Amino acid sequence: MRQDVLDFLLRNQHQFISGQKISEECGITRTAVWKHIQVLRQRGYVIESYTKRGYCLIEAPELLPPERVYDGLKTQVFGCDVQYFEKVDSTNNVAKKLAEDGAREGTIVLAEEQSGGRGRLSRGWYSPFAKGIWFSLILRPPFMPMEASKMTLLAAVALTKAFHKVGLIESGIKWPNDILVKGRKIVGILTELSASMEHINYVVMGIGINTGLAKRDLSKDLKKISTSFLIENVPVSRKALFQEVLFQLEQYYAIACTSGFDKILAEWKILSVTLGQDVEVTMPDRAFTGKAIDLNDSGHLLVETETGIETVLAGDVKVRPVAVEPTN
Amino acid sequence: MRQDVLDFLLRNQHQFISGQKISEECGITRTAVWKHIQVLRQRGYVIESYTKRGYCLIEAPELLPPERVYDGLKTQVFGCDVQYFEKVDSTNNVAKKLAEDGAREGTIVLAEEQSGGRGRLSRGWYSPFAKGIWFSLILRPPFMPMEASKMTLLAAVALTKAFHKVGLIESGIKWPNDILVKGRKIVGILTELSASMEHINYVVMGIGINTGLAKRDLSKDLKKISTSFLIENVPVSRKALFQEVLFQLEQYYAIACTSGFDKILAEWKILSVTLGQDVEVTMPDRAFTGKAIDLNDSGHLLVETETGIETVLAGDVKVRPVAVEPTN
Repeated sequence: MRQDVLDFLLRNQHQFISGQKISEECGITRTAVWKHIQVLRQRGYVIESYTKRGYCLIEAPELLPPERVYDGLKTQVFGCDVQYFEKVDSTNNVAKKLAEDGAREGTIVLAEEQSGGRGRLSRGWYSPFAKGIWFSLILRPPFMPMEASKMTLLAAVALTKAFHKVGLIESGIKWPNDILVKGRKIVGILTELSASMEHINYVVMGIGINTGLAKRDLSKDLKKISTSFLIENVPVSRKALFQEVLFQLEQYYAIACTSGFDKILAEWKILSVTLGQDVEVTMPDRAFTGKAIDLNDSGHLLVETETGIETVLAGDVKVRPVAVEPTN
Repeated sequence: MRQDVLDFLLRNQHQFISGQKISEECGITRTAVWKHIQVLRQRGYVIESYTKRGYCLIEAPELLPPERVYDGLKTQVFGCDVQYFEKVDSTNNVAKKLAEDGAREGTIVLAEEQSGGRGRLSRGWYSPFAKGIWFSLILRPPFMPMEASKMTLLAAVALTKAFHKVGLIESGIKWPNDILVKGRKIVGILTELSASMEHINYVVMGIGINTGLAKRDLSKDLKKISTSFLIENVPVSRKALFQEVLFQLEQYYAIACTSGFDKILAEWKILSVTLGQDVEVTMPDRAFTGKAIDLNDSGHLLVETETGIETVLAGDVKVRPVAVEPTN
């Protein structure tokens, strides 16, 4: 029903059409038309309306159906099979089911909206319709399970490289895998693993990139910690960005598979905004402050405290606030 | 249909009943009766047959429906929910699906037969009807993912303890988790994991214990490497053995959750038949021989070779043959 209304509006873009006309065309009441228009507006469709003139579709969000993703894609395998959904609970959940059923390496689950997007440490990830690129990548790496945790560092490096390519040059990595722009998160990564003790069945790399989120889309709490390409005033096509991200991910994954993680850890260090900073570390069992000095070969963060060097395997690391020049 | 035939035989156990009578009672042809009898025999039902006298059910295999498992079970949580199947592809596969859907800790998937039982290193596990205890245990441990590999050592210790309790005193552990009796495997363990980088979603511990497998049930290749309680001439009730196994698993799991793995690694060393032996190690990328000297804190095997000490994380370890006294 909503699709009928949308199709009719798209066919008549930039023209005013009356609610009566839409109601007749789609075989629904005028109240139903009005309700569908409200939902479409929430999804980013700019629809003007004036009494007596009716509705006019001014602008439609840029969606990412598979045929658009495939068009001009430079990868060998990543993204060659895109499973596309308007809305899912979490792309990672869908991808894990597909992986269990044998989906091959490089398969992507992409959704315009997630109702239950998940982040690290059981946090949620806000994923409204078409305001970001919410996807999961299925991998079947040849590493040992204990190497899998480095996949998340790989993702952070590949994404930062892709962001630099499309013009977001200020982005850097906060340990382990947040990508920050002026201290605010622009991407979330949740890597999940299915393995036996000596063999990885599959890895699902869930990535959420905030593209078109506006400040008004964010709650008061999220405003403090989140940003987006739109907020940073870096115009980008979702299609071009997604294709670049898949390309960089494939490049770095190939490096890891053939030569191991040394090069990736080295690049991570260069792109890091954590190393060299004073940090507050909150671990499941304790908290402490110190200076982040290095990453070890396993990808763990080394923090120098007053009593010695702590190895941080998991937990929350906050870079202590530094005065930032106000931006216009 | 087959159940009808079986029920009728069970109601008339130790009596001869004619094929004609069974055919009338179950509403199937005499040829169908004969076919069902053949399948029941393959499943371990001892059914005699003589021309003119008909069929006589002499002995039925000991099955493990949930109500039998619950009866007298001494555990708090393990086995309090038994999902029971006549036949599945692999209990681990079923358990992983249940775990994804939120099954709670301690849930068991038990099948009388597996058509595609899986073992370590992508090997199969022969699991014919009611000739072993084929089950998977769902766990949600509070450890970090990198600790999960020790779960497999925990399983080996708990099973060996349970076997000793029911009278199989000669069993010992071959690294990492085979339980051997006079050099032959009596149990297989395949532990699988679903996790994010810093949190275990669930562990599925798949265990196959050979109880009633006879030598004639085994292929030529399996005869060389496998054994069972029946072959070792240790009479055991499947129910009693299973309950003891669940009890020991729960005990050792509680220890790991509250005090960590030190005690479990120490017990593993005592029960090991690998330590102190000359071994041949086959790893994915190389092979070597040496003497197994210890287990490190991560549960990896330390092997002393001519050139130094090798740490074995995964791979196949063969204890070099030692002359064994022939048994009667």
